[in-house]
Amino acid sequence: MEPQNLKELFEPQTIAVIGASRSPGKVGHELVANLINGGFAGRIVPVNPSATEVLGLPCVADLAKAKIKVDLALVAVPTARVADAIRGAARAGAKAAVVVTAGFKEVGEAGAVLEQEVLKVCQEYGVGLMGPNCIGLINTHHRMNATFASSLPRPGSISVISQSGALCVAILDWAAARGIGFAKVVSFGNKADLDETDFLQALADDDATKVIAGYLESITDGDAFLREAERAADKKPVVILKVGTTKAGAKAASSHTGSLAGADMAYGAAFRRTGVIRAEGFEALFDYSLAFATQPLPTGRRVAVITNAGGPGIMAADAIESMDMVMAPLSEATRAKLAEGLPATAATGNPVDVIGDADPERYFHAFEILQDDPEVDALMILATPQNMTQPLALAEGLAARHHGKKPLVTAFLGGRDMQDAIARLTDLGIPNYDSPSRAVRTLRAMAEYAAWRERPVRVVTRFPVNRRRVERVLTWHRRMGIGQVGEVEAKEILRAYDFRVLPGSLATTADQAVETAARIGYPVVLKISSPEIIHKSDFGGVRVNLSTPEQVRDAFDLMMLRVRRRAPEARIRGAFVEQMGPRGREVILGMTRDPQFGPMLMFGLGGIFVEVMKDVTFHLAPITSQEALQMLKSTRSYALLEGARGQAPVDLDAVAEALQRISQLATDYKEIQELDINPFIVGGLGSPAYVADARMSIRLHGEGDTP
Amino acid sequence: MEPQNLKELFEPQTIAVIGASRSPGKVGHELVANLINGGFAGRIVPVNPSATEVLGLPCVADLAKAKIKVDLALVAVPTARVADAIRGAARAGAKAAVVVTAGFKEVGEAGAVLEQEVLKVCQEYGVGLMGPNCIGLINTHHRMNATFASSLPRPGSISVISQSGALCVAILDWAAARGIGFAKVVSFGNKADLDETDFLQALADDDATKVIAGYLESITDGDAFLREAERAADKKPVVILKVGTTKAGAKAASSHTGSLAGADMAYGAAFRRTGVIRAEGFEALFDYSLAFATQPLPTGRRVAVITNAGGPGIMAADAIESMDMVMAPLSEATRAKLAEGLPATAATGNPVDVIGDADPERYFHAFEILQDDPEVDALMILATPQNMTQPLALAEGLAARHHGKKPLVTAFLGGRDMQDAIARLTDLGIPNYDSPSRAVRTLRAMAEYAAWRERPVRVVTRFPVNRRRVERVLTWHRRMGIGQVGEVEAKEILRAYDFRVLPGSLATTADQAVETAARIGYPVVLKISSPEIIHKSDFGGVRVNLSTPEQVRDAFDLMMLRVRRRAPEARIRGAFVEQMGPRGREVILGMTRDPQFGPMLMFGLGGIFVEVMKDVTFHLAPITSQEALQMLKSTRSYALLEGARGQAPVDLDAVAEALQRISQLATDYKEIQELDINPFIVGGLGSPAYVADARMSIRLHGEGDTP
Repeated sequence: MEPQNLKELFEPQTIAVIGASRSPGKVGHELVANLINGGFAGRIVPVNPSATEVLGLPCVADLAKAKIKVDLALVAVPTARVADAIRGAARAGAKAAVVVTAGFKEVGEAGAVLEQEVLKVCQEYGVGLMGPNCIGLINTHHRMNATFASSLPRPGSISVISQSGALCVAILDWAAARGIGFAKVVSFGNKADLDETDFLQALADDDATKVIAGYLESITDGDAFLREAERAADKKPVVILKVGTTKAGAKAASSHTGSLAGADMAYGAAFRRTGVIRAEGFEALFDYSLAFATQPLPTGRRVAVITNAGGPGIMAADAIESMDMVMAPLSEATRAKLAEGLPATAATGNPVDVIGDADPERYFHAFEILQDDPEVDALMILATPQNMTQPLALAEGLAARHHGKKPLVTAFLGGRDMQDAIARLTDLGIPNYDSPSRAVRTLRAMAEYAAWRERPVRVVTRFPVNRRRVERVLTWHRRMGIGQVGEVEAKEILRAYDFRVLPGSLATTADQAVETAARIGYPVVLKISSPEIIHKSDFGGVRVNLSTPEQVRDAFDLMMLRVRRRAPEARIRGAFVEQMGPRGREVILGMTRDPQFGPMLMFGLGGIFVEVMKDVTFHLAPITSQEALQMLKSTRSYALLEGARGQAPVDLDAVAEALQRISQLATDYKEIQELDINPFIVGGLGSPAYVADARMSIRLHGEGDTP
Repeated sequence: MEPQNLKELFEPQTIAVIGASRSPGKVGHELVANLINGGFAGRIVPVNPSATEVLGLPCVADLAKAKIKVDLALVAVPTARVADAIRGAARAGAKAAVVVTAGFKEVGEAGAVLEQEVLKVCQEYGVGLMGPNCIGLINTHHRMNATFASSLPRPGSISVISQSGALCVAILDWAAARGIGFAKVVSFGNKADLDETDFLQALADDDATKVIAGYLESITDGDAFLREAERAADKKPVVILKVGTTKAGAKAASSHTGSLAGADMAYGAAFRRTGVIRAEGFEALFDYSLAFATQPLPTGRRVAVITNAGGPGIMAADAIESMDMVMAPLSEATRAKLAEGLPATAATGNPVDVIGDADPERYFHAFEILQDDPEVDALMILATPQNMTQPLALAEGLAARHHGKKPLVTAFLGGRDMQDAIARLTDLGIPNYDSPSRAVRTLRAMAEYAAWRERPVRVVTRFPVNRRRVERVLTWHRRMGIGQVGEVEAKEILRAYDFRVLPGSLATTADQAVETAARIGYPVVLKISSPEIIHKSDFGGVRVNLSTPEQVRDAFDLMMLRVRRRAPEARIRGAFVEQMGPRGREVILGMTRDPQFGPMLMFGLGGIFVEVMKDVTFHLAPITSQEALQMLKSTRSYALLEGARGQAPVDLDAVAEALQRISQLATDYKEIQELDINPFIVGGLGSPAYVADARMSIRLHGEGDTP
């Protein structure tokens, strides 16, 4: 969307409500009522040919005829008349339209056709379209409640974008009960035109928005999302709850990169890359957003806890340790200072226990020391409602003393005696949580975002490669209509990207196999070559350590016999005769092309680690060398690569470089859908790593192929 | 505690408040005030020698002199006077005392001495003691608020036991804001006398208590807890939040059973065994308790979801799948019935989406069909506050229609427009949750408890063994003062429990090693024997596959040379010469004696699976054969045992039997502190499994040893 349309969407001077109604309860009535009740300062023009006024405002039948210049059209007419309504508004100058009417794509084919018509009209007139099938939008700083569902929330600095209108309603209702404010609330419905990416872009540049909280069920354009999400996250925290990801994740069960990489992995990789903070559930979305909106980012993971009860303190410590945060160690000097203002029975370690009979002053004493302690990155105050607690005074005093250089979160535990204090904490911009562990989880989200912001500049290495060799192989496959690239040709492609491959060639007869073996030198390996056979050893298609011509001849004949028996349908091209390589650690390197986010790289240790233990990591291409090393470190089995259990450490850089080269290959050739190097053999430092087996699949036809 | 004391603790007719005070704010005043305000129907006797009346009740100076028969004493006098106060009450007939006074064990040595004195008095007079350092207790059905902290909650069926008084206060305050009722609330403080086990026992037998919710920081007597927790869980759900378990868990880093088994593992194993439902955090404690208190148990894991918005429905499906619950598949017939009462745009799959404009009737239509569907085990209703939702009518209608044969939980999402309905749901006994995932987690806890209740009768096999052989070895170690039982003797013990061990014996010279090899037959293995060397191969102390006398001689001499060089301090007893066994799958079987819960068995696949992947499971002894098989199945790597990756399946029963034999050994000999069989080699069905290496540690002195 063009910036000027955004201006008219978010800050219109004149809003036409097309389909305005006199009947309370009708959407067309609620829209007008909400605009009025919210205190909208611009002009509201109800459009209804059969009414003279709605809620005291004069109606018009036709905007153009009435010569009224409109900025934004709110459309609530029946589905079939939406296109016409927008046309009329566009002629009256509208640059943006919000269509709340439902019955479009979400109900089936006929609705989808109507939706396309609406979109066409918008494009023709240069109108930005939000919806259809949405609840509208809110801009509290413009006093605009252009929705049919709720009263205007108080102004705040969190903006919400949601693919679900119903959830927006629930969120507004939830916030109303808690006194939580918003900047803008956007329900973008079917996103026929404006989608999550447009709003990420708009809200990234919106000064009133300090945090973007999003609810998403799908992403329209993965590339655009990656670009805009990262740009937005660089400016302000973007917290997203993405739902509907388990089915695919559960299928992560076989040995192929493709099936290991479910949609959830791709979203995970995309969010990590772009700095988007992922909310694990509905509660986390606002747990995180509230803290980001009100508190500074921590510079580390060390949390200091102050409590007036042992139990919650232990809960906090448990949560901190189990969520990879750190209980800030307090120095002797700090502990001595703490002791000065606390009774002898108080605990000056972390958690600092000011004891059940603590008044607010005791908390303040500890708080002021700890917020100035350079060994503390974040503060967490726990309170139970004891006789001396005075929760309200505690809340106010903490806010007054907080110098705002480190995040402060609270868990005031209780109900009746705590509710005023909790409401006051919200007013004062201190996020309070129902349990210590939710507070800790929020601090972790903050620490992770802060770390992402400090990430090094991403420098993707480009290696010199031989693209002509790759193109030759791909062209041949396309011409022959063969989408599966077998070992021989996959290795040819990898060699062009400077992967080390052992000498070898295809033999179609036993004699040829023996000749090849003599040429490349014994011992050799024999591997079946057939486009239908991917798991070669399952079919008796791999024989290793063949040391004499007789062994090669016998192995060849036996292999042909057995494979033909076990896979009678397979087209057998012969056997690949290859030098027997040195031993080393087997790893699996892979790439699968996610329909949304493009090439996704995979890494795991070979064999049981991937297939049984599901110990794999994913990363979107292109990848930097640091990110590639990080991929290795993220596996549970990383210790083995480093040399656990008395094994020699492997050449980690060789693996990281291989991932970078796959990244480059996948970026260069969009037709490569999937690539498995399984195994890639890596030895110690200096001993060259090599591709022991590989396969690829390519798309034969389609847009975007490298010409 | 004797049952009669319990009666006097929970249902006293006359309560003496010793240390009753006229000054509001003082504990001794609040106790009297709370008893009066709670509507206690019995007699309240303030004891205070320097006052004539407290809150209108006449004071006495000395109970015995006043000839007042007392049942329960509430003690709030200063620490040093508590023992005397109890003595006085006991002479007046008190059978139970609640000491709220603090300053005992929790403040250090001097306090601990005072606490012992108080306990002695109680024991002398047969008085059951609760506390000290607690907030007191509540019995709503007796209209007794014998605490200093809160007003009497409404009567309910959940009873709370808590080691933290402050948390009790927070819970009471939290419940007061939500209208949640309790049966009994027990804050047992320092548990000098009555502890969690006593109250589990008492509440198990208390008809007013339908659910026991507990907060624990420690357990006093593991054996008693196991016994009483299981007895209680057999009668009613026991939900426990156990805190303070991470430090130990984080140490799960080395190869030894002992360090892999942190305290958290032991609690996990104890709770699983006894059917205690573990609350992962503060919120889960009441999320679960509320559902158990109001809803029937499900007979399976299939959940049907009804929603008026797509988003929350997807969240529920995500949660159900990721928490190992099942989205109930709806038959065509059910879907057709659903469709009859729903608009065409509604979704009749699961989740059933009744669409944003649904009125309560539409929900009821779907609800009545699904609660009668035999394919559905549990029902979950999601609602967002749309125009037609009428949350209050929905809540009431659901309660009226619920036939109570399957659990019903809700997640009414929102705030202002939802709060009345949510409060009504609580009144009507339908647990409502802030998010779909919390509702799902609760249903999972219910399903797991229901499955535990259906567990088969536990039959622990007792194998015929040769105890005299074991005792001979243990006696020798005790006499010699050697706590570490090395490979040779550990195998001797295991052989006595009918484990298969390969032929072999200790050789102190190279000649002797060669003689032994000749006797047992080549090839052989040589292993260093030294009480100081546990990880033999790290010191060059293992040589395998020795096939000739020369190899044995060379290996022996080299091993002595190298081990002496690498471990100069070690006392070397020689080398163990053993037959080279057949290959097989390496697994690790272990036992460590938890200070609380006694012998805990460990199982994991050998090598990297335990050391790098931390893929181990634990179970308390004694173990049944089903439980042993379940231990194997609980590892991530179980697929390998079953024969994944083309490997032959191993003899699972042989491993399970070995675990049962270890269980018997650990139960028979309490002095065995730790046992590692690493590796235990298991082959295919019929090929005998054997102990390849083993070690033990025993306690040399101490109570409870087998004579």
